[in-house]
Amino acid sequence: MSQLRHDPIQRRWVIIAEERQSRSTDFIPHRAEPMDASLCPFCPGRERFTPPEIMAIRPNGGEPNASDWLQRVVPNRYPALRIEPVELGRAADGLYDRMNGIGAHEVIIECPEHDQALADYPQIKIHNLLKTYRARLVDLMQDQRLRYVLIFKNQGEPAGATLQHPHSQIIATPITPRTVAIELVSCREHYRLKERCLICDIIQQEVTSGERVIYDDGAFIALAPYASRFPFELMIIPRAHSHSFSEASDEDLSLLGQCLQETLKRLRLALEDAAYNYVIHSAPNAAARPMRPGYWLTLAQDYHWHLEIIPRLTKMAGFEWGTGFYINPTSPEAAAKFLREISLG
Amino acid sequence: MSQLRHDPIQRRWVIIAEERQSRSTDFIPHRAEPMDASLCPFCPGRERFTPPEIMAIRPNGGEPNASDWLQRVVPNRYPALRIEPVELGRAADGLYDRMNGIGAHEVIIECPEHDQALADYPQIKIHNLLKTYRARLVDLMQDQRLRYVLIFKNQGEPAGATLQHPHSQIIATPITPRTVAIELVSCREHYRLKERCLICDIIQQEVTSGERVIYDDGAFIALAPYASRFPFELMIIPRAHSHSFSEASDEDLSLLGQCLQETLKRLRLALEDAAYNYVIHSAPNAAARPMRPGYWLTLAQDYHWHLEIIPRLTKMAGFEWGTGFYINPTSPEAAAKFLREISLG
Repeated sequence: MSQLRHDPIQRRWVIIAEERQSRSTDFIPHRAEPMDASLCPFCPGRERFTPPEIMAIRPNGGEPNASDWLQRVVPNRYPALRIEPVELGRAADGLYDRMNGIGAHEVIIECPEHDQALADYPQIKIHNLLKTYRARLVDLMQDQRLRYVLIFKNQGEPAGATLQHPHSQIIATPITPRTVAIELVSCREHYRLKERCLICDIIQQEVTSGERVIYDDGAFIALAPYASRFPFELMIIPRAHSHSFSEASDEDLSLLGQCLQETLKRLRLALEDAAYNYVIHSAPNAAARPMRPGYWLTLAQDYHWHLEIIPRLTKMAGFEWGTGFYINPTSPEAAAKFLREISLG
Repeated sequence: MSQLRHDPIQRRWVIIAEERQSRSTDFIPHRAEPMDASLCPFCPGRERFTPPEIMAIRPNGGEPNASDWLQRVVPNRYPALRIEPVELGRAADGLYDRMNGIGAHEVIIECPEHDQALADYPQIKIHNLLKTYRARLVDLMQDQRLRYVLIFKNQGEPAGATLQHPHSQIIATPITPRTVAIELVSCREHYRLKERCLICDIIQQEVTSGERVIYDDGAFIALAPYASRFPFELMIIPRAHSHSFSEASDEDLSLLGQCLQETLKRLRLALEDAAYNYVIHSAPNAAARPMRPGYWLTLAQDYHWHLEIIPRLTKMAGFEWGTGFYINPTSPEAAAKFLREISLG
């Protein structure tokens, strides 16, 4: 099974997930060949090529793993983390720290169609996808070993997608990832100082200035962050304070679907169908154990969930790897203006 | 000029460096075409296509910017940061923080040859390159506005290199980048607790186990870090404690050159000439102002400089962006074993 390892210099956890004995040829990068759609493991009729499903939408009430589905959730066939062993197995390794690769790694097959873009989904389909995100988040948070659940989508090969068929992924981890932990601390410290939410304050400033806003229907706002790392990096944020995506109502998800689709349509027109990633940043699992009393709870309630979209236009180079510092050639003001002025026809 | 901006949620500085008015076509990613070598701005005879040189090696004592050089250092033609204005111009922008894009961005043209690999350089050439790194580091640290100087190399297009001609880069910044700041704090806290250097302790553990070591001549060690983020990620570390690359002696640099070349040769054979980045992590500029008394000094002396090599085999996807957490399919033990067993012929 895989292992989580901690780097004491960088204070960073890494998942070492060796799937098979290392052979020389496994190390060499190769360009992904476009797959023949008739071989796609996510297409209807090929359900036997995925592990048995966790949940599915079947309006006609068919059997699990039959072909009459509109959406399926299955475990990842090559999971980075597995749910099985009971113990986390935390241990020292001399100076280092490690634990078992416990967690979950799931794939949401968004629809039977092999190549429909999310921006073009009928409204019911995007709504169902977001409701499934929420359902999996709520379910995985029952596991007290899991501190964090990340929902994300890789669209296009440059964004790391290895299969073309529309799908999202979920990875649940026994630690809170660093990126989220920093956001939690920022939000908590701002709240302690001001008794206001940091992200609520940001929304207010952005709405007042307007120069980085792309979409605002009063419920959800899409904006280019002030210190965007990448050209056309965007955030979608619920305007009403809410720490967890698991608390979004059906109506919220309906409005989020509209906001997400319009934003992705604008990006597609602006960037000629560039690859992208999106991730949902929600509060960590308040039920996780061991819990310092009130710790996660406080953090969670100071937090404000949001969705981050990163178009994959630029390459990471030595400077970015070496520093965690980014050089962005496109200001968020220019990106937002360009996206606002796109005609959706 | 460019601007440094701070993200209050992620607590991260970003350089917004707009080179030109944004036009739609500037946003769209295009594949780099292999450049006709006769158009290369770094080849001898084309010195007018770079800004005037900062330093050069000319054994025959020619004029600056003449064609008889063995190595040149020039300002980057499209610099992310510039040295010119006197003031940092720190300012609030509502909730946000910004400052002027002060710093330096230099290119080291390593040799007249258009396509020689660093692993194949004659010994004098790699030695000269490392001595130039040191000279530029020492010189840039005279500027009290500059807190950090990063020396790095992008080799190959997937690693972010836009020109084929062998070159390295230097970026000096008015803040200490986050990645380095975390390493400094780790080293300082370990020292306070143990009165020993964290990285010296790691070297001792790695030498004792040996399973992640690729090269060890008693002066420099090359190893695959315990919690490697990427397949075949490597570190080269001087075995004797030293906080700054600026303090390396000529003899140190000669031994480092041998270690670096042998390591890159093994990587090339193992990974079929894969692209890579390397970066030198050295202590921040102890002369930078304003300085909290003793702050940088303490940090600097607890630190232990090293060089990090990242072969570019895998793609960053949504999970990595969303969490700062990495999934590595190759254990460092497997990578180190494979590299050790490569025959250099």
